[in-house]
Amino acid sequence: MSDTPKPWRVTALTLFPDAFPGVLGTSIIGGAEKSGIWQLDTVDIRDFSTNRHRSVDSPPSGGGPGMVLKPDVAARAIDSVADERPLIYMTPRGKPLTQQRVRELATGQGLIVFCGRFEGLDQRVIEAREMEEISIGDFVLAGGEVAAQVMIEACVRLLPGVLGDADSASDESFEDGLLEYPLYTKPREWENRNIPDVLVSGDHQKIADWRRTQSEETTKARRPDLYEKVMRDKARKGDGQ
Amino acid sequence: MSDTPKPWRVTALTLFPDAFPGVLGTSIIGGAEKSGIWQLDTVDIRDFSTNRHRSVDSPPSGGGPGMVLKPDVAARAIDSVADERPLIYMTPRGKPLTQQRVRELATGQGLIVFCGRFEGLDQRVIEAREMEEISIGDFVLAGGEVAAQVMIEACVRLLPGVLGDADSASDESFEDGLLEYPLYTKPREWENRNIPDVLVSGDHQKIADWRRTQSEETTKARRPDLYEKVMRDKARKGDGQ
Repeated sequence: MSDTPKPWRVTALTLFPDAFPGVLGTSIIGGAEKSGIWQLDTVDIRDFSTNRHRSVDSPPSGGGPGMVLKPDVAARAIDSVADERPLIYMTPRGKPLTQQRVRELATGQGLIVFCGRFEGLDQRVIEAREMEEISIGDFVLAGGEVAAQVMIEACVRLLPGVLGDADSASDESFEDGLLEYPLYTKPREWENRNIPDVLVSGDHQKIADWRRTQSEETTKARRPDLYEKVMRDKARKGDGQ
Repeated sequence: MSDTPKPWRVTALTLFPDAFPGVLGTSIIGGAEKSGIWQLDTVDIRDFSTNRHRSVDSPPSGGGPGMVLKPDVAARAIDSVADERPLIYMTPRGKPLTQQRVRELATGQGLIVFCGRFEGLDQRVIEAREMEEISIGDFVLAGGEVAAQVMIEACVRLLPGVLGDADSASDESFEDGLLEYPLYTKPREWENRNIPDVLVSGDHQKIADWRRTQSEETTKARRPDLYEKVMRDKARKGDGQ
């Protein structure tokens, strides 16, 4: 028996297995797979076509442009790997991915991710297999593969042992609901621009206050939606609720 | 002289050139690069270190975890490729990427994208080089590479000649500010679930109405933020403004 913890296991269902590992094969993320912290498998959805042309799609019922992934083929691909891991479908119709959901997923056993292509997947499979629909943003991609890689990378960097000393998972954007403060490093003067005096003052309390103010002001200016949410949450806590 | 239009040109500045093309090398996106519709170059930021250890980062001024990309190194890398294309920095502190910005970028000449690593980039370079800060969502990645790939894929699929008949850039999520309606395809019955009657009715007006209602209801339920925006815009147009 080994004491090595089980790797965090990802299975990606895709029509383009060559799209993986992609960016996930490089940097600390690729290194973490090599050292067994996580594991990536791909399943080719096309292998579950029973058609002699290996087709996986047909036109949308009711008309309209494009093609739709067939429910029977998608379900067979899903059923070939389904287990207790969350089953996620990447789609612009999904719930926006948040750092909170990333943290939850990273503490689990891994995930199964279905990468859509064409116009999308037959709605009946999404319902029948109770797929969790997740979106990474309000834009449209050629397929779910790169969206899946975004979600996987966000999770893997939080797994124990992945981030080294050169990185950090604390004190960054969204950990307290706010955008991060601006960063500066050597040299002290560059192109006639100086590092703000407070940061070289050595006064830790002043530095912390300045950073908090910068975080709040940046968030307020760039993301009033996030800022209002943090203020609401603060007010609620203040009420002792 | 050739009549071939100039390709849409992407230059990615990165510490991990191996992360490219990644997913961008596959499917219709990879095919479009091979056929000359767009072109991808990478620049290794580390080549612009003047340090004998080829270091590119140092600790944040004022203390705190992690490392910050040095302004001088980053600026030299940027200046080596800067031209009239938009210069974009992928960062969670940025403005959220939207389908509208994607469409604008796709109609231009291409883009230069700076992929951050570590805690981030010295604020002075962002200001001195007037970098456009873009975020793909409220979560944290190991680096900007996969975020850049998301943005590039979203743009490239809109370039003329990329989407074939099997795909479509109309009638999809965000083109009218709403999430897309649910999709169905053959077989008519699957696991005792039927395609909704209206979609097999042949009544085009009824189908269009049903889809519009579904789009609105899904958006209202899943993305009240988007729904309210569409309703506000509609009201404004109604006022003749």
